[in-house]
Amino acid sequence: MHAYVYVSLKKSVLDPQGKTIQGALKKLGYRGLEDVRQGKYFEITLNGGLSQAEAEAEVERMAREVLTNPVLEEFRFSLED
Amino acid sequence: MHAYVYVSLKKSVLDPQGKTIQGALKKLGYRGLEDVRQGKYFEITLNGGLSQAEAEAEVERMAREVLTNPVLEEFRFSLED
Repeated sequence: MHAYVYVSLKKSVLDPQGKTIQGALKKLGYRGLEDVRQGKYFEITLNGGLSQAEAEAEVERMAREVLTNPVLEEFRFSLED
Repeated sequence: MHAYVYVSLKKSVLDPQGKTIQGALKKLGYRGLEDVRQGKYFEITLNGGLSQAEAEAEVERMAREVLTNPVLEEFRFSLED
């Protein structure tokens, strides 16, 4: 089973790295850009030892307690077989 | 319209950062882990100036030419209204 955790800065937090990427893309001539924000993404492979519900709880706990800085970031995750 | 670009290391490339996170999570007592890999994730807001097909082509081009290092990384993306 695979879990995908997406961590991004909260909307209220400035993202200078994203702004820099946006500026670079614009300078390079790419069209249609309004905003770019960068985040992190974790691909977690789970061994078969957990049930679907246990895996969901465990991944949610990892994301909340370790992978995300709750002051600045928010996360979402999905599980796939 | 929003575009989400996910960039990850190719399967054949070692990911020491992911391995470190995996070790840390294991030490902290999280169960069920087999592998962790870290990637980047870009959330791109597009202005309304492009059609769906144009936006798709433009985002694919940005991801391929700028956001991804083709030697080490691969990407996938999705568009949402």
